Amino acid sequence: HVCITLSDCREVVQRSKEAMAALQRKNSTIQPTFVIVQVCEVTEHVIEEIFKLNEDPSVHGVSLQLPSSLLTSQVVNAIKPEKDIDGLSDVNVGRLLRGDSGPGFLPPVANAIIDLLENHDVSLEGKSVLLVGAEGALIYSLQALTERSGMEAFKSHIFTSTSRTLLFFQVMEADAVVLLGEGNINIPSTWVRPRAAVICENDISTKHLVAAYRIKVFTYLYCLCLLFSYCVLTFMISLQNVICSCSHWLQEQQHKPWTLRSLRLKPLTPVPSDIEISRAQTPKAVTVLAEEIGLLPEELEAYGRSKAKVRLSLLDRLQSEPDGNYVLVAGITPTPLGEGKSTVTVGLVQALSAHLKLNSFACLRQPSQGPTFGVKGGAAGGGYAQVIPMEEFNLHLTGDIHAITAANNLVAAAIDARMLHEATQSDKALYKRLVPSVNGVRKFSPIQISRLQRLCINKTDPTSLTPQEVSSFVRLDLDPNQITWQRVVDTNDRFLRKITVGQASTEKGQIRETGFDIAVASEIMAILALSNSLQDMRSRLARMVVGTSHSGRPVTAEDLGVSGALAVLMKDAIKPTLMQTLEGSPVFVHAGPFANIAHGNSSVLADKLALKLVGREGFVVTEAGFGADIGMEKFFNIKCRASGLKPNVVVLVATVRALKMHGGGPSVSAGAPLPKEYIDENLDLVAFGCYSNLRKQIQIAQQFGVPVVVAVNVFKTDTEAEVALVCQIARECGSADAVPCHHWAQGGRGSVELAKAVKEAASKPSHFKFLYDIEMPIVEKIRTIAQKVYGADDIELSAEAEAKISYYNQQGFGSLPICMAKTHLSLSHMPEKKGAPTGFVLPIRDVRASIGAGFIYPLVGTMSTMPGLPTRPCFYDIDLHPVTEEITGLF
Amino acid sequence: HVCITLSDCREVVQRSKEAMAALQRKNSTIQPTFVIVQVCEVTEHVIEEIFKLNEDPSVHGVSLQLPSSLLTSQVVNAIKPEKDIDGLSDVNVGRLLRGDSGPGFLPPVANAIIDLLENHDVSLEGKSVLLVGAEGALIYSLQALTERSGMEAFKSHIFTSTSRTLLFFQVMEADAVVLLGEGNINIPSTWVRPRAAVICENDISTKHLVAAYRIKVFTYLYCLCLLFSYCVLTFMISLQNVICSCSHWLQEQQHKPWTLRSLRLKPLTPVPSDIEISRAQTPKAVTVLAEEIGLLPEELEAYGRSKAKVRLSLLDRLQSEPDGNYVLVAGITPTPLGEGKSTVTVGLVQALSAHLKLNSFACLRQPSQGPTFGVKGGAAGGGYAQVIPMEEFNLHLTGDIHAITAANNLVAAAIDARMLHEATQSDKALYKRLVPSVNGVRKFSPIQISRLQRLCINKTDPTSLTPQEVSSFVRLDLDPNQITWQRVVDTNDRFLRKITVGQASTEKGQIRETGFDIAVASEIMAILALSNSLQDMRSRLARMVVGTSHSGRPVTAEDLGVSGALAVLMKDAIKPTLMQTLEGSPVFVHAGPFANIAHGNSSVLADKLALKLVGREGFVVTEAGFGADIGMEKFFNIKCRASGLKPNVVVLVATVRALKMHGGGPSVSAGAPLPKEYIDENLDLVAFGCYSNLRKQIQIAQQFGVPVVVAVNVFKTDTEAEVALVCQIARECGSADAVPCHHWAQGGRGSVELAKAVKEAASKPSHFKFLYDIEMPIVEKIRTIAQKVYGADDIELSAEAEAKISYYNQQGFGSLPICMAKTHLSLSHMPEKKGAPTGFVLPIRDVRASIGAGFIYPLVGTMSTMPGLPTRPCFYDIDLHPVTEEITGLF
Repeated sequence: HVCITLSDCREVVQRSKEAMAALQRKNSTIQPTFVIVQVCEVTEHVIEEIFKLNEDPSVHGVSLQLPSSLLTSQVVNAIKPEKDIDGLSDVNVGRLLRGDSGPGFLPPVANAIIDLLENHDVSLEGKSVLLVGAEGALIYSLQALTERSGMEAFKSHIFTSTSRTLLFFQVMEADAVVLLGEGNINIPSTWVRPRAAVICENDISTKHLVAAYRIKVFTYLYCLCLLFSYCVLTFMISLQNVICSCSHWLQEQQHKPWTLRSLRLKPLTPVPSDIEISRAQTPKAVTVLAEEIGLLPEELEAYGRSKAKVRLSLLDRLQSEPDGNYVLVAGITPTPLGEGKSTVTVGLVQALSAHLKLNSFACLRQPSQGPTFGVKGGAAGGGYAQVIPMEEFNLHLTGDIHAITAANNLVAAAIDARMLHEATQSDKALYKRLVPSVNGVRKFSPIQISRLQRLCINKTDPTSLTPQEVSSFVRLDLDPNQITWQRVVDTNDRFLRKITVGQASTEKGQIRETGFDIAVASEIMAILALSNSLQDMRSRLARMVVGTSHSGRPVTAEDLGVSGALAVLMKDAIKPTLMQTLEGSPVFVHAGPFANIAHGNSSVLADKLALKLVGREGFVVTEAGFGADIGMEKFFNIKCRASGLKPNVVVLVATVRALKMHGGGPSVSAGAPLPKEYIDENLDLVAFGCYSNLRKQIQIAQQFGVPVVVAVNVFKTDTEAEVALVCQIARECGSADAVPCHHWAQGGRGSVELAKAVKEAASKPSHFKFLYDIEMPIVEKIRTIAQKVYGADDIELSAEAEAKISYYNQQGFGSLPICMAKTHLSLSHMPEKKGAPTGFVLPIRDVRASIGAGFIYPLVGTMSTMPGLPTRPCFYDIDLHPVTEEITGLF
Repeated sequence: HVCITLSDCREVVQRSKEAMAALQRKNSTIQPTFVIVQVCEVTEHVIEEIFKLNEDPSVHGVSLQLPSSLLTSQVVNAIKPEKDIDGLSDVNVGRLLRGDSGPGFLPPVANAIIDLLENHDVSLEGKSVLLVGAEGALIYSLQALTERSGMEAFKSHIFTSTSRTLLFFQVMEADAVVLLGEGNINIPSTWVRPRAAVICENDISTKHLVAAYRIKVFTYLYCLCLLFSYCVLTFMISLQNVICSCSHWLQEQQHKPWTLRSLRLKPLTPVPSDIEISRAQTPKAVTVLAEEIGLLPEELEAYGRSKAKVRLSLLDRLQSEPDGNYVLVAGITPTPLGEGKSTVTVGLVQALSAHLKLNSFACLRQPSQGPTFGVKGGAAGGGYAQVIPMEEFNLHLTGDIHAITAANNLVAAAIDARMLHEATQSDKALYKRLVPSVNGVRKFSPIQISRLQRLCINKTDPTSLTPQEVSSFVRLDLDPNQITWQRVVDTNDRFLRKITVGQASTEKGQIRETGFDIAVASEIMAILALSNSLQDMRSRLARMVVGTSHSGRPVTAEDLGVSGALAVLMKDAIKPTLMQTLEGSPVFVHAGPFANIAHGNSSVLADKLALKLVGREGFVVTEAGFGADIGMEKFFNIKCRASGLKPNVVVLVATVRALKMHGGGPSVSAGAPLPKEYIDENLDLVAFGCYSNLRKQIQIAQQFGVPVVVAVNVFKTDTEAEVALVCQIARECGSADAVPCHHWAQGGRGSVELAKAVKEAASKPSHFKFLYDIEMPIVEKIRTIAQKVYGADDIELSAEAEAKISYYNQQGFGSLPICMAKTHLSLSHMPEKKGAPTGFVLPIRDVRASIGAGFIYPLVGTMSTMPGLPTRPCFYDIDLHPVTEEITGLF
């Protein structure tokens, strides 16, 4: 008879203590905890309980001690395998029996028996073990484990036909006898061979031992080791399982190596339409993709099968993880047709992840839905470098722009309604309504107290305000002519550019002129893109200035009392949306602010999440709108300032077409056929273009201290000599490397050379620095950008611009960065000036401010913030199949 | 040596044939199919292949024949257990070993061996079986199966230390010997006992047999039975597994009994705020809820954790299933405070499902987001009868209203842009742009051909149109004064009620007056609510009339070329959103059209899906807006006409408060304290109210031939005598039953009496009939409603109304149903007339039409379609915690 001794228990306890200590070295606050489910009476309730425990991150193990009537397959399998410390669920049993040394749990009883057999004073290796009694999963698990330890297992079937005599012979021959179950198997000690081991499950079972509910392993480890009893061994092993589960959990919380499964691509020639290519590929379920890149299930909010929002809690979880390499894709000054920055971004990530097998992530802007129905052109990349499914990318997505529209227009409605109410009510009446008596008590809401504080009224009792204070509290006193807040729609609706509102009799003659912008032009979009957290977004929303009072005071969203509601409307929009490329690499789609009146970059949060997910050796590729003089300059001076992130590499996209234009080629316009200069080889034009625009854009990037790789996006009309020439001159002009890429026709395989060049450039030091100090006067900041980036001789401010600047300085907005609103079609303010213009003075027509987003935007020329529909909008071709739901005509 | 004979195979084939025949009786087109994965070289690709096969409904089994290097745990477990016909995945192995007789598969080899042992000429029951060779899952499965068949299994460990001598003794004693694996175990026949069975796996294995890829079981069954070979048995059993899997699949496609798990409710006194109650409950994951109510995973599109869209393909799958009971909740004429129809609806479903254990579903309208930030009041029910999480119900939800906004405003933008383009271009220029030459070819798009057909121009070649035809094709010739289409926002923005658009210089003076409605007032919302399918919605969207041409011709969305794009924007919105009540019963939230200018009912599709899901004995409870004179009348005459569904029971909600008002109590208004008549017992007022308004509303329902149950929504100030009096008079007036309900304070338990009454009423015959024939003249239809429902003496049409009616008749819109736009605060058109007014003539001020939605709506009085914000909107109190994301101040 094997006696469970103090030392058996001590050993397990010792091991557990060591594991525990190791755990606490990693995380000092961790408390391995398990729950024993014992009292429930109805299957439904047991399952409800188990589901809650499954989702509770503070519980690392669930043990069921239920009557067998409740211990159904449904109940047992409801426990997450990772928390099934009893090792009873199908998955854990199957895993053990299939012989997998995976992360599963063994039943503690089986484990205890093996422990005892292995510690027997005579080695049992190669000896025979007789298993008596019990049935089901336990016996097979035990058998498998015994055999795996080098013993031979035999079973005695006392519940079938085996006679007692047979049992006698079996016991006689066995080197060890294990009595399982709680039955009354009487085996006289005389049957047993000398020195054979006898283990009785009753001795090691935990049954009836524990009545508690939620148990911290910690406490037990340091009490029970003294208690020592002949039946605690199994319980000790349960504790060990909990510690193990907790350790797994902790490991889960760490950054995990990716197991990204690439989707195979078989590019066709000629390249089919974007929607055909997108539809031919089956995206991975987004839940699968998320698991591959190390997201936890609780960090994901799926929206259908192929897109999901990712929770910001990820940033806390991976706080101590180093960031990956941060790559910006910018471009030379484009033709009106665009030069393919999005496709380069997607192609580069496809190459990095599917071909070089490096963790990598693309971060893209969400396109406005309006233009989707206006003039053709998606924003999901194109050819074999796309985000899929492209129709979901281009429509609704996860509703972020709709949320922005709702938030933006709530502010607008609040402004006009407030002006009406102020115009038609006395101070007293307004005060009575704004601070109403509820059950006899009048109270300020927190948002009203915040306004009082800004007014320097440090009171919290509504009855204590003087009439003067009441008046300044209730009257925002907005000047209708100084309201800068516009309404928005996500539709190309040109007739809303300038409108008159308030013409119904109910609005009592309070009419005024205003207008609608397209939704992505809303300041709230810029805020979404620049926020670092929910808290940060909430504060930025509160700071938004919507207009000026008659006395010249800026009026904010917080003054309107609406900022909390805006944050509520935006609480899901702040989570980036996860999608994938054609080759199955991860993509974040998040925010898409205008690139002129705003900064034209995707969100800070998407980049931050992605940088943590890819890990130290990984790559995050993000894209800036327009040419490098605009999008990249704002990326560095505005976005990186807001985020604190430091970029490692700039990829500068160039095309032979655009370079020829800069080299003096005829003008290019959408809709018109390309002149022959762009179709035939013309090395002179290419060289002229390279030495003007490309060189200048490389130099701009270099001013920020970041290595540049030039990517030549090759079109089928480009000749080899032309492409080679671009690469050669680019290297001459100081780019770290310059390579052609063929992602559009070949997918990631066509961008492998670029991926290698980027990897090489990232290994070089980046000496990132801002172009200007934030505390410089506004005028000086504008001048710095004009001279150092655009190549202007100087700037020239209109009287209006000067007045605005002095107003902003006076209001304390002087130390915000600058967001130039300039044409993207030239380095100068004159769209027709190609190459690298010099000898011009940049005129600043006006200066505006997005205080919530946090920048001043000087206007260089007129910016349209509401596109229109052409005579034949592309919606003429858009339709869907009523049964298959397949969309046609979208791009 | 057991020889596998023709008969062994024949038997299996025979069984399979029978199973196949049974299958084909159920579904004649079904083709059990399995796929053998054999050629892949990289784990990634195998898994990609397996994932595709998992999701392919035409594949019922997947068999892996891979080199062992590829047969990893990850690969094996990638197969869905339901398709794992080799029975190798952890779940299938675990299930077998745990002793579950669930839906898992056994490994065909094991199955074949058991088959052979059981068919051995001497019964082996109680005899011993020696298993030689092999390892891993197979041996344990086989052992478990052998023992389950009443034999005793012993294993010989030839790969460990067992000597050949021991093997000799073991074989000598065995009644059957099974040689597993492909090793060279040489067992001389002299060792074997007489009459003992010897089975060699080589004989029964399928290896090297099949090189094909995708195999229809059908073909094999009818060929191989002739082929018969000594090694096809296992293969035959594989086929059997495929048929079994296919049969399971087919069963999955049928209606399934629910396994709804209720959430426990522990109501507190006093009842906390709605948001506190909602937050205190943890909803089931929507994927779990979906499984419980018999939805297939592929029918669900989750939007986060607690809401999901349900695909319409469900209707095809359950086509032949009978509908459940269809219950409408309507109300008596309410006070301006509302009488709790939504809470009754939710409470009733909680009672039916969590307490009476009947399948039941609530179908609710999606509330507009605008009022959420205006005046307090959610629409998710209240107290302990709510839809949770209530903040998701009240905000964004799954974006349907945002989609409607986008679609509605695309139409508006198209109208104004088209008018501008027509005003500024010649016929020829317009034609050139509308039918452009693409690569030298001009082609009409399908939507343009549809316009040509409406113009009776039966041509498809763009070059063949006469100048006259070109002109009528390119010019919609919209009369700016006859445009009925308005823009919408989902914000309470009163300043948009009447506006002037087109004032920017870019719009060249084409200014006009128009306005915005709140989004739910859009005709597209009414269409969403009345559509029976995607195809139906597409057609209705096309038929929408947006205005009239100068020549008096109606101009439709199809004429604008935009209807396909609208369907694309609405393709997800058409899928109802699944949520749950506080007690875990399912809820569909879908569509929320206005109850005056539209019909005020949730969607036809949600009701149809729910009726199929609950099954014959189940209940679907849907709610109609306003009082029974409006919402219920429209439910019957408009919604049921569109859907073809027949309601079984009407629940008429009454409150003591509203009855006292109808009985002559003082007026009730929001914000003001209730007069004492409403707080103290007053049986006279109650009785007067019952004999006027309640009686009349019961009579209205009875005109439609549907049994009525009156539900008294009990408030805490109501006395027992008052409630009893209402119930007594209600029964007197012809209601099938009348019961008090206490769901607000008690949840479902408080509505059990109502649930029983509804169940009882549903067992009675319903003789549902429409109130009027659809072919009656418009004026007669209006008069019928006015007289029979409202109790008017007659109607009186304005000149404008008469002119419109004759125009509609002339345009062929005469046989549409009528949707009265009347106040809900009185049965008459005069809100101050309570009780059951008589002796009045109903004035019809104007008549309008929603041709796409499919109804004519006469205006009785002025309807506001854009609410405003009060001086202190409730957004002052709304905020969220920046870390927990918990929302405060929302109701």
